[in-house]
Amino acid sequence: MADSPARFKDLCLDALDHQTLADWWCAALGYVRRDVVEPEEDGWTRPLDWPVPIVDPSGAGPLMWIVPVPEPKVVKNRMHFDVVGDTSELLTAGARMIRLRDADTEPDGAIEWDVLADPEGNEFCVFSPEE
Amino acid sequence: MADSPARFKDLCLDALDHQTLADWWCAALGYVRRDVVEPEEDGWTRPLDWPVPIVDPSGAGPLMWIVPVPEPKVVKNRMHFDVVGDTSELLTAGARMIRLRDADTEPDGAIEWDVLADPEGNEFCVFSPEE
Repeated sequence: MADSPARFKDLCLDALDHQTLADWWCAALGYVRRDVVEPEEDGWTRPLDWPVPIVDPSGAGPLMWIVPVPEPKVVKNRMHFDVVGDTSELLTAGARMIRLRDADTEPDGAIEWDVLADPEGNEFCVFSPEE
Repeated sequence: MADSPARFKDLCLDALDHQTLADWWCAALGYVRRDVVEPEEDGWTRPLDWPVPIVDPSGAGPLMWIVPVPEPKVVKNRMHFDVVGDTSELLTAGARMIRLRDADTEPDGAIEWDVLADPEGNEFCVFSPEE
């Protein structure tokens, strides 16, 4: 609504090693560093210790900032995102399995997604593409 | 990229009082409960203790699930989103100020956004609309 106090802008994820985690999520989601599609003005180079913006070239997913912080992750994240994709490929890429989806034989209410974590332990859920 | 292991799907936010927080974020962001724009099939009613999907009718922001959990928030969120909007309207709506932006008189590197928290303490940053 035009008259709401705010509108959604982008997503931010804290990281101990933000350069590495930015590359990891780019590879996992098909994102690219923003300067790949939108070069910095006047050949300016973003300092390595600044947050890294990554974007979805398809325009479907939100802009994400991978933000350097000194503190490690300590509890389950209060906010996470879900993805549609291939769990085994994500595990091969370095994700960690937290909880496998329930078997198809389970009754209604079964959990139909896998819970994985990225290399810094951030939880995310993986859904199969719709058939 | 079509050959990445996954693609972004949606966002999830844990909440102690997920029905109230869903309404709060709908009002703050101009989102609506998904069944407003996409009625449930066969008049089915979503149980009140299930996660609440909310959507941006403009299509710009991602689908969000507000998910009931028993545990309260205990540390700064590792992931958050930014908004473009009006800080004073958000405060009036029940947000809490965590950190006011630096004054315009600060040198380069000044923080140009306010950090607020929603009624359950989830941090988010507020940027002014671009002029």
